[in-house]
Amino acid sequence: MSGRAPSSDLAARFSGNPLLAPRDLMPSREDFEVLSVINPGVFRHAGRTWLLARVAERPAPAPGRVRIPVARDGEVRVLDLRADDPGLDVSDPREPKYKGEGLLSSVSHLRLFSSADGKTFTAADNPFLRGEGAYETYGIEDPRVTAFADGRFILTYTAVSPCGYGIGARVTRDWARFGHLGLILPIPNKDCTLFPERIDGAYAALNRPSGVIVGGHDIWLSFSPDLVHWGRHRCVARCRPGAWDGARIGVNGPPVRLPQGWLVLYHGADASKRYCLGALLLDPEDPRQVLARTREPVMQPVAPYECDGFFGRVVFSNGHVVDGDTLTLYYGASDTVTCGAGLRIRDILSALGV
Amino acid sequence: MSGRAPSSDLAARFSGNPLLAPRDLMPSREDFEVLSVINPGVFRHAGRTWLLARVAERPAPAPGRVRIPVARDGEVRVLDLRADDPGLDVSDPREPKYKGEGLLSSVSHLRLFSSADGKTFTAADNPFLRGEGAYETYGIEDPRVTAFADGRFILTYTAVSPCGYGIGARVTRDWARFGHLGLILPIPNKDCTLFPERIDGAYAALNRPSGVIVGGHDIWLSFSPDLVHWGRHRCVARCRPGAWDGARIGVNGPPVRLPQGWLVLYHGADASKRYCLGALLLDPEDPRQVLARTREPVMQPVAPYECDGFFGRVVFSNGHVVDGDTLTLYYGASDTVTCGAGLRIRDILSALGV
Repeated sequence: MSGRAPSSDLAARFSGNPLLAPRDLMPSREDFEVLSVINPGVFRHAGRTWLLARVAERPAPAPGRVRIPVARDGEVRVLDLRADDPGLDVSDPREPKYKGEGLLSSVSHLRLFSSADGKTFTAADNPFLRGEGAYETYGIEDPRVTAFADGRFILTYTAVSPCGYGIGARVTRDWARFGHLGLILPIPNKDCTLFPERIDGAYAALNRPSGVIVGGHDIWLSFSPDLVHWGRHRCVARCRPGAWDGARIGVNGPPVRLPQGWLVLYHGADASKRYCLGALLLDPEDPRQVLARTREPVMQPVAPYECDGFFGRVVFSNGHVVDGDTLTLYYGASDTVTCGAGLRIRDILSALGV
Repeated sequence: MSGRAPSSDLAARFSGNPLLAPRDLMPSREDFEVLSVINPGVFRHAGRTWLLARVAERPAPAPGRVRIPVARDGEVRVLDLRADDPGLDVSDPREPKYKGEGLLSSVSHLRLFSSADGKTFTAADNPFLRGEGAYETYGIEDPRVTAFADGRFILTYTAVSPCGYGIGARVTRDWARFGHLGLILPIPNKDCTLFPERIDGAYAALNRPSGVIVGGHDIWLSFSPDLVHWGRHRCVARCRPGAWDGARIGVNGPPVRLPQGWLVLYHGADASKRYCLGALLLDPEDPRQVLARTREPVMQPVAPYECDGFFGRVVFSNGHVVDGDTLTLYYGASDTVTCGAGLRIRDILSALGV
């Protein structure tokens, strides 16, 4: 590691990190290159551990040009600009602007990888999951996967189009056939994960709308009778100005039921856009109530692969598996690669003061 | 009128405008003053025409000070600052900022006014409708009222709190007792109006979420089985860059069923924040389909009371009544007063090319 992990960092990183890297993947079309393979949804199925990773691609670069993917008439085309075009603003490489209009630096789809031991992953034969319909023309990003006891898996992801980014959802039992639940939460919303069981008869989702003028990038909780229609929205955790999670927060993967309550891991960024992970403990009977929140991050970007890359100083997780006291976290590092780490649940509870 | 109305302006303004003005109202607390009485929801009930107007109040001014309402610990207090405080930014008087944090210039509640002739309104005895609960601590704004054939009235309004602004809703039959439906659409959302009947068995609402980074201030359509939970969100009309409705759009009051389709009036603002009104015609069977849209505004701010005031050059309507071919529009002018105007539906259809 480039820096020593601070004492609050509870993550034992895999020695084999990164587990997935762009160089291992073929792009989905020949005029694109793979920029990153990150932020997988995680689940167990058929005796294996699976990662549903976001693969972000961009137009292959050309000297002196900036090439930006744009959705036009339902398909992705390439806007090819001179690098010194005065209309171009690439001060944040993730969010280029052209003539004041926000554009995307990449278009994402989802690919499955599986592993027998949870440490060595190989690409699955399953078809890629791509954006479908008018609200996913810029692709689909950052999936969370929630497994229900009845055998259903629900994918919730960021659906991106020129109309904005909202929460899309699909349902599957076999990872071959999928039902589309539509845009389940309107723009602008990201970072949605479902609870793995109903709360008082209703599906429940933690999600992250973004305030305009008033309000911030906070974590909200919403409820649904049918996964398609959502209401009873309420804010459960706000950013803490000046702290490591002062600028934006959003949930990781599905909440984990413990005797003490629902354990929720989340990412937080400060004004410098350094992304760390923290934890919340929600009331076991009424998850609208936050029982505890870690003061310090439980994981911070310290390893070289977490500090250098397309957008450095980022650890960002959408999923995990739990085996006894061990929570194995899969996470995107530096917006470039996918890594793994183990955390002891008792350490997280201790950091929560429980 | 200060300027001649352009030929596209179809509105015959009432000679008695404004119908309601701040000077006619007492503030709801003695340390506040009434800033504006605007943007009423409109309905017919018990043989009269009713306006449910937004009354915006602010702390009474003091020399050399800027006094801003803030919600703290569930109640509204006054932040009292020196006018030259370097942390203060009042470049847009509707949206002051202090140390980068967005604040409100006013806090709103709703009051009922009624009229026998639709032209002279008097304050009703009904209690004021105020913000209730954590998501309305900064007040409630810009109500739309939709009357269903079963006698229910549904109010949809902007619920404002430090967590952001979303869509709140309440239901009543008698304007004395109200049921609260919660925050029905998450932040950030404004300008929500219900269709007066179900579409294929579902409640339908036009609403205006706001994009962050990608997406704009466009009109969306959402559906609900029960008025509480909403899904199947889709964008039905986008801003037209460079036009009078290039920066933001949002619906007026409830859609009007005509043989030709659903007539929807909407407001649009350009980059200079001049607010005009236009019209959409939605497919009578499938309102997700836009059949026509007016190229020019059907109403523009031209009268003195529409051009001068707290925030000039604004006509903004949340409701209307229909009598034969006459659509009587009640509207906020210059974010200060409430006015009335008549439009002929056949003229609007003609502007729509129908």
